[in-house]
Formats: sequence, structure tokens, C-alpha cells
Amino acid sequence: MTVLRKEMFDLPEGLIYLDGNSLGPLPKGAAERASQVVTSEWGTQLIRAWNTAGWMDLPRRVGDRVARLIGAPEGSVAMGDTLSIKVFQALAAGVQMRPDRKVILSDNGNFPTDLYMAQGLIDTIGKDYELRVVDPEEVVEAITDEVAVVMLTQVDYRTGRRHDMQALTQKAHDAGAVMLWDLAHSAGAFEVEMEASGAEFAVGCTYKYLNGGPGAPAFIYVRPDLVESIQPALSGWLGHDAPFAFELDYRPAMSTERMRVGTPPILQLAVLDHALDAWEGVALSDLRAASVALSDLFIKEVEARCPDLTLVSPRDSALRGSQISFAFENGYAAMQAVIDHGVIGDFRAPDIMRFGFTPLYLSEDDVRKAAERIERVMRDGLWRDPKYKVKSRVT
Amino acid sequence: MTVLRKEMFDLPEGLIYLDGNSLGPLPKGAAERASQVVTSEWGTQLIRAWNTAGWMDLPRRVGDRVARLIGAPEGSVAMGDTLSIKVFQALAAGVQMRPDRKVILSDNGNFPTDLYMAQGLIDTIGKDYELRVVDPEEVVEAITDEVAVVMLTQVDYRTGRRHDMQALTQKAHDAGAVMLWDLAHSAGAFEVEMEASGAEFAVGCTYKYLNGGPGAPAFIYVRPDLVESIQPALSGWLGHDAPFAFELDYRPAMSTERMRVGTPPILQLAVLDHALDAWEGVALSDLRAASVALSDLFIKEVEARCPDLTLVSPRDSALRGSQISFAFENGYAAMQAVIDHGVIGDFRAPDIMRFGFTPLYLSEDDVRKAAERIERVMRDGLWRDPKYKVKSRVT
Repeated sequence: MTVLRKEMFDLPEGLIYLDGNSLGPLPKGAAERASQVVTSEWGTQLIRAWNTAGWMDLPRRVGDRVARLIGAPEGSVAMGDTLSIKVFQALAAGVQMRPDRKVILSDNGNFPTDLYMAQGLIDTIGKDYELRVVDPEEVVEAITDEVAVVMLTQVDYRTGRRHDMQALTQKAHDAGAVMLWDLAHSAGAFEVEMEASGAEFAVGCTYKYLNGGPGAPAFIYVRPDLVESIQPALSGWLGHDAPFAFELDYRPAMSTERMRVGTPPILQLAVLDHALDAWEGVALSDLRAASVALSDLFIKEVEARCPDLTLVSPRDSALRGSQISFAFENGYAAMQAVIDHGVIGDFRAPDIMRFGFTPLYLSEDDVRKAAERIERVMRDGLWRDPKYKVKSRVT
Repeated sequence: MTVLRKEMFDLPEGLIYLDGNSLGPLPKGAAERASQVVTSEWGTQLIRAWNTAGWMDLPRRVGDRVARLIGAPEGSVAMGDTLSIKVFQALAAGVQMRPDRKVILSDNGNFPTDLYMAQGLIDTIGKDYELRVVDPEEVVEAITDEVAVVMLTQVDYRTGRRHDMQALTQKAHDAGAVMLWDLAHSAGAFEVEMEASGAEFAVGCTYKYLNGGPGAPAFIYVRPDLVESIQPALSGWLGHDAPFAFELDYRPAMSTERMRVGTPPILQLAVLDHALDAWEGVALSDLRAASVALSDLFIKEVEARCPDLTLVSPRDSALRGSQISFAFENGYAAMQAVIDHGVIGDFRAPDIMRFGFTPLYLSEDDVRKAAERIERVMRDGLWRDPKYKVKSRVT
């Protein structure tokens, strides 16, 4: 069944947006929702809105909506902060669960902030911990009984290569390690079965495939049987069992809410909540089928039209997330030219042109048009224009 | 000179809002700003808005505006996350600066999340650290050469009692300790001279006196001479010297930006940025004078009208922040009744009725009216209505 619902998004006329894997587009009605929260809730109800407008409970409600999209039970997902912070929380809890082990294992296809946060945690704990970073294809072999936590981003942000969640989680558990998945490029991109995987932790962001808007809050999943035993490193008052008792000692909530930290970003959460409406009634199996069809079509069209571009994503869709990347020596300039010709993707150093596929608002016709426009840029060498050489963009 | 600019705020007709120390009211035009960011920036510019709409630089620009309000130089304040997270960052950096010392000193008038975050940090680092919590009046004596970091909230959230920033910072430094101030109830409440104090760190929130809206981001100040030597515990990619180089190893920015962590909450930041317009041209010495006048008037009026209420804030304005608290055995019920009669303050366990004074949108006439309404509730025992007994409010 089609999951296309382009009418729920405000996309600039004529533009083909293949960067929903970086920042999802604007869901229609989001400005009205933001305006309503600001005017009717904040403006009129003021401090009372924490109760009367349900602000205090908003993170939990949004968390339950995200939970459905990652195959997690109600009450197992806490919202807030940024992905980096959530990585820190999960890692800190993970190493506490394996006090005799000193290795955090990851791979060099992980998004750098995950590695950076692990480095910061290790420096904070003390020097006998080690962050071991291997090539993605070496992860399986590297999961040994030295490893406390295996921390992997399921989908490589450069190539779109997808790790086998089930097999790697099993391997981690066989070796006695804790498993932490970063779902940044998974949530809303395809079916994720967090609960079935058995993994202890997952984290993710909501401004990519979930369309929550710039700086939308992150999420953390904790396997329900662990919730009452893990000790939060970032033990903020809203993770306290009774935040408004103002006790002097931290006493964690007896639920996933203990992974909450400080005051939740209500405007961002409300807009995210609105964005999640677009997922109502969407079967993720249908979404995945559409994503594969769009991606396969894109590969076929671009390869036929643009001989200078080299596919760096796995050709086998079973091994991919929902993005397609091509390598091109002048990829930075080429991507700027492609953007100027009405197709937005992005560039990742050193030479990757990256395109995301998001079946909620992308049709096969869009994909064909995108390939035609990319062909024009490549065939006519439009990227050679000197204006595309200056690296002025920060993202 | 008067700082009253009520016309810049949308306050419900007839309501007297004495809770701007908990959540500041809505600055006029905030909904339009939110809507503009959502529609024109996110909706139209999409991912490009990180560059074209200046999103990437927004935290720094807002940080500079906050810096002015706390007597800090440009470039010394980083925005983002929550106060709890910023406390963790400052504390972690502080204890690293004094590796031979194992005590974090605070007082039991500190807002609990600061203590909780310290507890979480200590549990993460290891068990030889100690969080030592004393009475506020015992802090001076407790600053010994065992202390690595003195962590104090300048204004007590219950009583409004204010610590002497200059004297305590001096005492901390004389003892070789690092000083961390929580300015949650200081920033926008009165003059703060961060740079002149010599303190190493300060943190604060922006949704109270700065009117940034529910869940507005927090700030952290780092004394400029330290910025290049402190090692961030929460070493996220946006604190990296070159976030978009996607290096595998963390390399902190050579500025206060190293205290940034993850992707900034653009909607919240934009609304906060708008809210800070209300501070343009405000001399904090004038604000302070007005705050003292309003607070003194409130004490005088309430004490004359309500013999059952006992002042628990310092009578001497030099020892206070910008709030006045009264103790009353049935304070919870009484505050609910007061709110129902058009004066919003809040309640803090066990028996404190708390009122904030915010001269940007509060006049002496408002204060007199508030006292009259409170008198009516107290004199007629309106708080005895059974509906006020149920503790349904979470804030």
C-alpha cells in the first residue's frame, strides 16, 4: 500500500528534496502548532501550562509515539536533550553494567559524535577504559569478552551501509557485552525491531526521517527489564522519582523516565508531536518497500546517466538503510551545482554525494526527475563553475 | 529610569503574574518569530537554513546577548542543553582542574538538580569523590583546602536569600578551589558581574527572568583564560574544532564553543533570541532598583494585610534576589486560591508561597492589587475550600 502523503508536507514548488535523512521537511500545520503552544499555552496559561496544557507529560506521550516506530513497547522511550547526550547516558549505564570490562567497541563508520562522547566519558571515568574503533566489517570479529559495550550506528551516515541488528546483538550478548544501537538513520527509515533485538539500549534523533524540525529532541530506549536497575550518570531532577518533592538526594524514577534530565524543550516537542501525525496509519513494511523501490530506481537512473559517479552504497538493498551515496572526486562542487538545479542532497567529506529516500513525500516521478537534473549537471560539467569551488557551507 | 515595558509582553487581562521567576511570560511577537522560523526558514530553506538562515551561528549570537546581562565578555557564554547538563559540564571540568581534591561543596539551599547532577558525576567518576552539602550560612566555613569545586546557586529558590558572589568566590580562590555559580535566579533578576567576580564557571537558565519560553536552552559561562585548557566531559560534535570535518577523534574548539554538545534547538533559540529584545536598552542597575522597590512594597503591603503569612525572605534587600517568600502552614491550598483570584505565584514544599518580581512588566500598582487579592484569600479563608486541598499540580 502506498505511503505517499505529500499533501501533509510543505515542500517548495519544483524542488526535489533528497535530504530528509539530514533534516526532514516541514509538515503542514507545524507553524500553527508552534504558534498555538506559544500563544494559547505559554501566553495564556503561563506557568500553569505545565499542568493544564500537559507539558510535563509531553515527553512521555511523544516517546510512546516514537516507540511504535522502532518496535519498542510503550513506556520504553524517553525524549529530550540531543543524540550526543543520549549516547553518553546509554554508554555510561552500559559500562556500569559490566564493571570488569574496560573496552567500548565501535566502528569508524559511526557518526563521529558517538565516538567523541565515548572519548569524553572515558576521560571522565579514568584512563583504564579504551575506545576500540575498527572497520565496520571487522566488528563481528572484534566482539570479544573484553568488550563492555558494543556501540554501533546501524546505518553508516556516509555510505548507507546497514549493520545486521539481530546478528550483532546476538554476538554481543554471546560475548557478554551490552549492545547500544544508534538509530539516527534508522528511525522512520525502515522497520526497526528494538524489543525483538534484545539490545539493551538505543538512541536516535527525530529531525531526520521523523521530520521533527531543526534541533528536535533526541530519544533513548532502555530495555524494560533494565529500567529499574540502571543508574543514570546524568541524574537530573526530571528523572527523579518525585521531582517536585525537591529532595536533596537523587532517587531515580522507577521507569524509563529516569533517563530524562532537565526541563523539556516544549516548543520543539510540540512540533515533533505534530510531525509524528504523518506516521499515523503508516505500516513500516510498506514504507520499506517504497524506500527500496525509490532507491533502486535512483541507482539505475543515475548509473545509466552519470558514468562519472561511482556507487558507494551497497547494491543489495537488504544491506542498506534509506540513502544512496555516490563518490565523485569533485563531489562538493557537484552537489552545490545539483542543489542549484533543484535537487537537494548533501556532501560528506572526502568525496561523497549523499541522497536520502523518504517515501512519505517522494514519488518515483520525483526520483526520475532528480536523476535527469543530476545528469544535466554532470554531462554539461556545470559543477566546474568557479562559484561552486568555495566551501562556504557548514553543513 | 523606569524599565517598565509592559507593552512588550502579552499578559492575560487582569492577571497579575508574580511567577516570572519560574516561567517568564510571553514576549509579544514570539509566536510570529516561531512561525517565521518554521515557515520561511525550515519550510523554504530546508537543510540550507543551517547556513542561509544562520542557524549554526545562532547559539553564539544568543550567547553574546546573555553575556551582556551577566557581566561577561563576548564569546564567553555557550548556549544549549538544559541547566542540569550545563552543571554537569562545569562540575566535570572543575574537578579535572583540581585532581588532588575530592570534595564538591554545595549547600542545601541549592536547587536539587544541581546536587543530583553532582551525585551522578561522582558515581560516574568513582567513589572517592564526596558531595558535601552544608547549610547556606555554613558555606564560608566549609570552604577548605579539601574542596575541589564550590558549587552554589546564588539565589535560594525557596527563600530568595542571595549569596555574596564576590566574597565567596574570593574565599574559594583563597582556598584553592574552583568556583561554579548557578545563576538560574540571577540572570535578568539583578546585576551580575561574572567577569569581575573571577569565578571560573557559571550556568543558568533562560526561561525564568529572561522569558525564553518553556524549555528554553541553558547557558554556561567559562572564564576566558580557561577556555583552551578545560577538557569537556560531554564532548559532542558541535564542540569540535571542525565539526564538519567528521574526524574520528575529538579535538575541542579553541573557544567557549567547546561547551556546545549536540545539534542546537533552533526553535527554542529563536524564540529566546526574540525575548532578549526586551532587554535592549535596559540598565541592570535600574532594573535592580525597581525590583527592590517592588519587593519592599510587597513585603510592606502583605505584612500589613495578612498576619498569618510569615516572611521567610531576608528583609534586607541587599541579601535578596528578586523574589519574596512567605511561609504559611496551608501554603499549598492558599496559593491555589490566590491563583484563582488573579495572582499567580507558586508553592514550594513544605510551606512556602513564592512570588517573583520582574520590573519589565510589573508596576507598583500591580503589586498593591496583588496584596489586596492575597488579603482577601487569607482574611476570608478562601483557601479552606476543599477543592484546594488536592495536590494535583506538578509544578
